[in-house]
Amino acid sequence: MSDAKRPTKQELLSRRVEHIDIKRDDVRPLVRQMSRMAFSARDLARAADIYDRMLADRECGVILCLAGSLISAGLKQVFVDLVRNNMVDAIVSTGANIVDQDFFEGLGYGHYMADERYKGGLDDDLLRDLRIDRIYDTFIDEDELRVCDDTTKIIADELSPRPYSSREFIREMGAYLKQHGLKEHGKTPDSIVLAAYECDVPIFCPAFSDCSAGFGLVAHQHGRGDQPKVSIDSAKDFYELTQLKIKNPTTGLLMVGGGVPKNFAQDIVVSAEILGVDAPMHKYAIQVTVADTRDGALSGSTLKEASSWGKVDTVFEQMVYSEATLAVPLMCGYAYHQGAWKQRPGMKWTKLLDEVPASA
Amino acid sequence: MSDAKRPTKQELLSRRVEHIDIKRDDVRPLVRQMSRMAFSARDLARAADIYDRMLADRECGVILCLAGSLISAGLKQVFVDLVRNNMVDAIVSTGANIVDQDFFEGLGYGHYMADERYKGGLDDDLLRDLRIDRIYDTFIDEDELRVCDDTTKIIADELSPRPYSSREFIREMGAYLKQHGLKEHGKTPDSIVLAAYECDVPIFCPAFSDCSAGFGLVAHQHGRGDQPKVSIDSAKDFYELTQLKIKNPTTGLLMVGGGVPKNFAQDIVVSAEILGVDAPMHKYAIQVTVADTRDGALSGSTLKEASSWGKVDTVFEQMVYSEATLAVPLMCGYAYHQGAWKQRPGMKWTKLLDEVPASA
Amino acid sequence: MSDAKRPTKQELLSRRVEHIDIKRDDVRPLVRQMSRMAFSARDLARAADIYDRMLADRECGVILCLAGSLISAGLKQVFVDLVRNNMVDAIVSTGANIVDQDFFEGLGYGHYMADERYKGGLDDDLLRDLRIDRIYDTFIDEDELRVCDDTTKIIADELSPRPYSSREFIREMGAYLKQHGLKEHGKTPDSIVLAAYECDVPIFCPAFSDCSAGFGLVAHQHGRGDQPKVSIDSAKDFYELTQLKIKNPTTGLLMVGGGVPKNFAQDIVVSAEILGVDAPMHKYAIQVTVADTRDGALSGSTLKEASSWGKVDTVFEQMVYSEATLAVPLMCGYAYHQGAWKQRPGMKWTKLLDEVPASA
Amino acid sequence: MSDAKRPTKQELLSRRVEHIDIKRDDVRPLVRQMSRMAFSARDLARAADIYDRMLADRECGVILCLAGSLISAGLKQVFVDLVRNNMVDAIVSTGANIVDQDFFEGLGYGHYMADERYKGGLDDDLLRDLRIDRIYDTFIDEDELRVCDDTTKIIADELSPRPYSSREFIREMGAYLKQHGLKEHGKTPDSIVLAAYECDVPIFCPAFSDCSAGFGLVAHQHGRGDQPKVSIDSAKDFYELTQLKIKNPTTGLLMVGGGVPKNFAQDIVVSAEILGVDAPMHKYAIQVTVADTRDGALSGSTLKEASSWGKVDTVFEQMVYSEATLAVPLMCGYAYHQGAWKQRPGMKWTKLLDEVPASA
Repeated sequence: MSDAKRPTKQELLSRRVEHIDIKRDDVRPLVRQMSRMAFSARDLARAADIYDRMLADRECGVILCLAGSLISAGLKQVFVDLVRNNMVDAIVSTGANIVDQDFFEGLGYGHYMADERYKGGLDDDLLRDLRIDRIYDTFIDEDELRVCDDTTKIIADELSPRPYSSREFIREMGAYLKQHGLKEHGKTPDSIVLAAYECDVPIFCPAFSDCSAGFGLVAHQHGRGDQPKVSIDSAKDFYELTQLKIKNPTTGLLMVGGGVPKNFAQDIVVSAEILGVDAPMHKYAIQVTVADTRDGALSGSTLKEASSWGKVDTVFEQMVYSEATLAVPLMCGYAYHQGAWKQRPGMKWTKLLDEVPASA
Repeated sequence: MSDAKRPTKQELLSRRVEHIDIKRDDVRPLVRQMSRMAFSARDLARAADIYDRMLADRECGVILCLAGSLISAGLKQVFVDLVRNNMVDAIVSTGANIVDQDFFEGLGYGHYMADERYKGGLDDDLLRDLRIDRIYDTFIDEDELRVCDDTTKIIADELSPRPYSSREFIREMGAYLKQHGLKEHGKTPDSIVLAAYECDVPIFCPAFSDCSAGFGLVAHQHGRGDQPKVSIDSAKDFYELTQLKIKNPTTGLLMVGGGVPKNFAQDIVVSAEILGVDAPMHKYAIQVTVADTRDGALSGSTLKEASSWGKVDTVFEQMVYSEATLAVPLMCGYAYHQGAWKQRPGMKWTKLLDEVPASA
Repeated sequence: MSDAKRPTKQELLSRRVEHIDIKRDDVRPLVRQMSRMAFSARDLARAADIYDRMLADRECGVILCLAGSLISAGLKQVFVDLVRNNMVDAIVSTGANIVDQDFFEGLGYGHYMADERYKGGLDDDLLRDLRIDRIYDTFIDEDELRVCDDTTKIIADELSPRPYSSREFIREMGAYLKQHGLKEHGKTPDSIVLAAYECDVPIFCPAFSDCSAGFGLVAHQHGRGDQPKVSIDSAKDFYELTQLKIKNPTTGLLMVGGGVPKNFAQDIVVSAEILGVDAPMHKYAIQVTVADTRDGALSGSTLKEASSWGKVDTVFEQMVYSEATLAVPLMCGYAYHQGAWKQRPGMKWTKLLDEVPASA
Repeated sequence: MSDAKRPTKQELLSRRVEHIDIKRDDVRPLVRQMSRMAFSARDLARAADIYDRMLADRECGVILCLAGSLISAGLKQVFVDLVRNNMVDAIVSTGANIVDQDFFEGLGYGHYMADERYKGGLDDDLLRDLRIDRIYDTFIDEDELRVCDDTTKIIADELSPRPYSSREFIREMGAYLKQHGLKEHGKTPDSIVLAAYECDVPIFCPAFSDCSAGFGLVAHQHGRGDQPKVSIDSAKDFYELTQLKIKNPTTGLLMVGGGVPKNFAQDIVVSAEILGVDAPMHKYAIQVTVADTRDGALSGSTLKEASSWGKVDTVFEQMVYSEATLAVPLMCGYAYHQGAWKQRPGMKWTKLLDEVPASA
């Protein structure tokens, strides 16, 4: 790019990604029409119906799994609404969604729309110079992301030194937003971390150091030297989520993307068995993904395959082959407007975990 | 399936997956021909050349990243050969590859070829009954997998209770194989965990509880009750890998699949910066994947995009769009037969990590 | 499948695919929200806006390109509505969509929803026995499809023997539906072929023998022996479509899927040049597809790549990465409810082609 | 791109794509190793074995189907070798492979390797200015392509005016290469069109006007005005290919890519039935593709699905999920070095078609 045409950082970061609000438009007539079509439309309609069944099943705890760049893509408000309306009881996610993207926005920052021309990658050198990070067609101010890293260090520094589950640490992040969010960064948008804190919905990031919080924790541990320090015990995450399965045997999985969150959440059925409890398979399971089945990787593996592992029952399971920004608003919007959640108090699983022995 | 045709477990688990040996066939003439073609063939040849350059660059530490079901698919021996021939200095992997598949085979167990008819998933109920787990076209004996889970518990039970990096724990798994493998399970095949133990190649699984070891650790922690216990500190993994980057600034990434390992290994450049060290971007980076770029997820994101984050340099980077079982033997076979590794002592990074303060 | 559970043909063909009606639900608020998100949602919203611009541009002729199993999937009514509301001026399609699926339904037949279990393919032997054809999750009565083949033979038999463009032959199919449809097969649903006949929208199938009509034409030619016979001149198709481009230089492409229709419609810019006319590139171009870009095939090739060939301008072009049943109702529904078509008389290109010398 | 860095056409067209020679390297040991792995490697090895079985089955006629940009990608010599060694008896292809790419090279022209930076599409305006056409990572001189178009017009002009099957026209192209190739354009590389002409292997392009020949034929028809002219009868193609199936009932399909060629070749089983002949399904069928199954389109539809249509038998069928440049050399190289073709005279189907009544 010639210097004359070279845009400034301010110009590049001028159009903010806005989050879709599923409460506004009642998509049920559209989804119902899709239920009589074929291919992804029919699959999506069936997945939406299964999600509605999960919510109507008074014994079912709903576990939301998130992988991929979903929050930066404008889906944050969808998940916030699920939390605030008792439509989800636990979240298992990649760290990027929860920390780099959601907590980051909770601190008052935002994601920005990139022009089509940047997708191809040829101007990434320019972006590097301007300290702008790119996710396909989306920009992030790297300096703001550094503040997010630093904030996680501040949180770690204030905790008593011991192993924490990611769930415990993320609850502290929620408390931080509750206390500092508004004051320090002006009008704070709602966030999944804050909503989950307020609604007693536990959030697990099984690969927690693989995100902005990892940077903060590395800095914390480095700063402590030989002194006692905060550590993140991913086995404790697994233990806690397994306890939830044991105490609330009927469960459903609402999965967006695959990866670690999908595997981790599916595995708790087996984990319960290891602890000597004969927990049933996940009764409901739906997944939105574009991952291919043919490379044998977990992300695209069918939910039928998971049934061979004893993890997922096959009566109410549905894969939806779609990029998430298209399918999630329709699927979750359908369930929202169906309103089964209105009769649902929510499991308040954070409270239940407080009763689990703190040392696991 | 009618009962009459119903196969036995023994019949289903009769044809073992065998691991391809890249040392046998010199694929260089084939790959060189591919370098003058187009599309994936040319990309693969260029990636093979970049890997060869990494090995010829005496300052470059090579980090192998593994995601997807690679070991069960017959690629174990490839990675064992890379380790034993100083062609890789560190490994970052999903837990499934290292524990459920490689360590599992290290204990003397195996993976089995499934007939085409099982891919579709309609017989997964039968598999469930027989306690056979399925990965697309591959079978596993679930009872044997339980032994693998139990073995990780045995290892945890024998360790002094404190937070461990996954790298430290996996080294103990290597020591276990060294000591017990042959005796207890007959003729033990070589494994990545054992080879890495013997060759001082550290292995990191940033989401370590998301695998068979997670089951063992949950059982360990549960068994300990309120007593001190082993925990897995994923922040420590990140700290250790960052230290390697700081002490050996020139690095190259050899990535198979995306997911957490890709993100984690790319991130150490930023992590070093957080610790106040101006480390260079990864100088070389190649990735084999079938993930799509268009859903914005990290697994399929281009290496050019990573350059906007300051993580990967763009002179020697190459994405190869292929399922791993086809591309990896050609790419790694090419580099093996080129022989640049013969002049290469290997970084022995495990030794270097022993000098890092034990408490991080 | 055991005989006891073996379903009858009637049971399998009991739930008819129904076509989505974009006129019912105003999706504009939803699509507008998507325009501020990222990834496919934003791309879809931009594509919808470009389609609206095509319709508002009074000089623009809109060419709809169809590939993939779209009509059997429940999208027929969308395209019928585009035709009847002057939202499209010509159609280029695979034969399967126009003959096997649309004309077939025009004869009074239908497509049926298959249960999830049939997708995997393990019961295809049963389907073969029952003379049921399968398209992924959709069933067709093969006996009814034979009637469709026969009907195209009847039409061919009644024509004077000479080379026809597929466009001319399909017009005869429209005339047939107009005359016989209702009488012979009961209540006839609307169809693209009929609507296009009535609205003077030409339909081109450049690979016309590659469908049910091919069977009819082979039977016709076989029956004629050495006598003069009807033939299908695909060069004449190309000539006619090029004439449209020459007489109406401003054009936009609305493409669903890739394949021959995409290539054929893009090529008319070059074809005009070959005839000595300096026609402008297609001014607008949008494509919905899941085809990958990385295999170099035309179906997934970017519209930017087409600009290197001088076929498509790059100001108003957009690829949307989505399976068609999800994206098409939103994209076309948006344009329908915007209503730019209300000011648009439609090009009535069939009339214009009647002025082209009959012998090309 | 700033003017200073702007490359010349000559610089951009300097590195020619070279065609891989499967005769050079015996890939059988590699493919045999792959047969015991999983996923695409095992599928590829099985497909290679099925191709070998086709060749060893003395009654089997082998039909090669080509879609995607295969010749420009460096696979031309593979298919030339299949033709010259009696490893294929008929070809069904997209026009682009046969005319724009193979015949084009037969005239002495070539394809060129593009640097990585051009893939992203941001320099397509420059390419447009320089009259360079791009296929992903490959360049073509547009002026040379115009000569190819013109040559097809010259051929059409010299033929007696009547409807031709594409097969008949392509044979004339072979004759043209035989006569003029060397003299007019210097040293002519071998080509599929020439080899097929010399070896009596018929080539069908069911959408023949959808390529460079379409331009030539449009110019021809335009030049003839009201005079009799050459036309291309795609129904005649279908009739001819069906006759081959009738006269040689045992057939196998070797498919690279999907699209019209796949559908067309599969359909001849049904077409024979329409003509009153009870022809068996294709006994063997293998396909290399990256197309997804989940959009219901034909390109990615499984061969099991084709069995529900009565087109393909399911005992010896195999899909291979891979980009063609990686899988085709291994699959065809395996069959070449197995040598079953040495006992095989080849069907010489062009001669058989000469016995079909000329008027169909």
